[in-house]
Amino acid sequence: MGEFDLIQRFFTRERPPGADVALGIGDDCALLNTTPGAQLLISSDMLVEGRHFLSTVAPERLGHKALAVNLSDLAACGARPKAFTLALSLPRVDEHFLAGFAAGLFALADAHGIELIGGDTTMGPLNICITVFGEAPAGTALLRGGARAGDELYVSGTTLGDARLALEVFRGHIGLPGEQFEAVRRAMELPQPRVALGQALRGLASSAIDISDGLVGDLAHILRRSGVGASLEVDALPASAVLAAQPPALRREMGLAGGDDYELLFSAPAAAREAVLEAGRRSATAVTRIGRIEAEPGLRLLDAEGRVLPLQPRGFDHFKP
Amino acid sequence: MGEFDLIQRFFTRERPPGADVALGIGDDCALLNTTPGAQLLISSDMLVEGRHFLSTVAPERLGHKALAVNLSDLAACGARPKAFTLALSLPRVDEHFLAGFAAGLFALADAHGIELIGGDTTMGPLNICITVFGEAPAGTALLRGGARAGDELYVSGTTLGDARLALEVFRGHIGLPGEQFEAVRRAMELPQPRVALGQALRGLASSAIDISDGLVGDLAHILRRSGVGASLEVDALPASAVLAAQPPALRREMGLAGGDDYELLFSAPAAAREAVLEAGRRSATAVTRIGRIEAEPGLRLLDAEGRVLPLQPRGFDHFKP
Repeated sequence: MGEFDLIQRFFTRERPPGADVALGIGDDCALLNTTPGAQLLISSDMLVEGRHFLSTVAPERLGHKALAVNLSDLAACGARPKAFTLALSLPRVDEHFLAGFAAGLFALADAHGIELIGGDTTMGPLNICITVFGEAPAGTALLRGGARAGDELYVSGTTLGDARLALEVFRGHIGLPGEQFEAVRRAMELPQPRVALGQALRGLASSAIDISDGLVGDLAHILRRSGVGASLEVDALPASAVLAAQPPALRREMGLAGGDDYELLFSAPAAAREAVLEAGRRSATAVTRIGRIEAEPGLRLLDAEGRVLPLQPRGFDHFKP
Repeated sequence: MGEFDLIQRFFTRERPPGADVALGIGDDCALLNTTPGAQLLISSDMLVEGRHFLSTVAPERLGHKALAVNLSDLAACGARPKAFTLALSLPRVDEHFLAGFAAGLFALADAHGIELIGGDTTMGPLNICITVFGEAPAGTALLRGGARAGDELYVSGTTLGDARLALEVFRGHIGLPGEQFEAVRRAMELPQPRVALGQALRGLASSAIDISDGLVGDLAHILRRSGVGASLEVDALPASAVLAAQPPALRREMGLAGGDDYELLFSAPAAAREAVLEAGRRSATAVTRIGRIEAEPGLRLLDAEGRVLPLQPRGFDHFKP
């Protein structure tokens, strides 16, 4: 099967383009329509086997995750997704893999009403590079730099730490009963980008980021950009039933420094608390208050009694072994 | 060196953003400003060692080429480049490679007045994925499907076939004196995207494509999309001094099916001939008339006496060995 057949067979869909797409796959460029008064938001992630996914992942789930981690970046900025491109390097044309990958990819694309508009395919070591495009009214995008002393800190969802827990099972460091393993494995392989919540937070949140490198590591980006510090109530972190059943030290470590979470971490003025919780309800996404932005630089981890913990977990870095 | 240091050290530049860029590297998304009445054009190419470039290429030239092949897609559509993202997978942090790659990349970016606005870095087999963004007034983008019987066919530049000739020297199939080899090697490693010509052709050309898979293969895309045929005057193809000195059969083969050329192939109504040549002069780019669009399907290759040649070279396919 040649390069062009592959695109035609697995990645071309016959469907009327939405209002966002003027021209999809098949020419030198794709054409997007833009909305007057809006800015275009762009994010790009590259996924490599062994670093971003394991060889054991089902192709459907890999297709889902490759798009999900990109949509999560749009969510963190409060953007409405418009479209995406896919560049794919494959060691061989594996029809089972491609059919599954495309099915998972397009299922998530359909859930968010977006279309694949272009990209590239080549032969080489497995590599997946997706670039997503979204839109927000000019000046309304949520950024990392807007947190102010007195703001409250929130995290979305109840899966924080689950993906890392699953990874530790794969690594043989931890054992879990089959059903519990399946639950955290879903969190790792099928993250749900918080796109609806991100849009609902425009005008409410003062800063936001998606958690890909661990809560503490990604919070550090907000603090540095905003020129502030924070205290984090470690025992207030949401946890799934599986994570909640783990020993406290492990639970804290997974929640604080797990990585691969794709939940939103954001700040909002204290006066906006009710509106933030309402945004969570409106987008059917759990929202938990987990701390406070403070003028004093640095991060303080507090336990349930308000005592400072010595723990300083590190963020995940793709260039560390 | 960690992932974040790498971006900071090699790919972050302190410079005032242009009017196109509202926010560059450093947040979950980049933000582009859009122009009222314009459409956004997007193209993405993935480069893999051994398939798109040889391990012998200098890092500066690889940085140039990775961006050039993407800008060539914008050129083919007549777009004005706005910005680009870079996703990079590296087997190790090689400072010599990164410094050279960044130098070549940014030199070409500066030549076209565009900025790197985001992307990704990870550890893995060497892979370079660039996505470029451009703009054109709505409805004016040059596409593959507009060629009409009676239109004339043109190709830009004088390097057609040179890149393939250089590849054949690397492969040991052909020998060239050192100076001649350096000349065609430049064509292979430092292609010049025809961005100014592409924009000058808006409103003139009826169809356009950039030649990456060989003239005949890419012309076939125009013919299929436009529902027409063509005759090509093989001996009218432009050739560099090096290629012109090769035996006629080799010269034809390189010109017709070389690949990696990144020249523009386009059609325009016969009445627009003078305006097309003027667009070439205005953009300081050679433009050569090489054939004619015809109602009869298929491609006819004619020699200088107008005789039909049996030769039917194939386009380059990245999934063929």
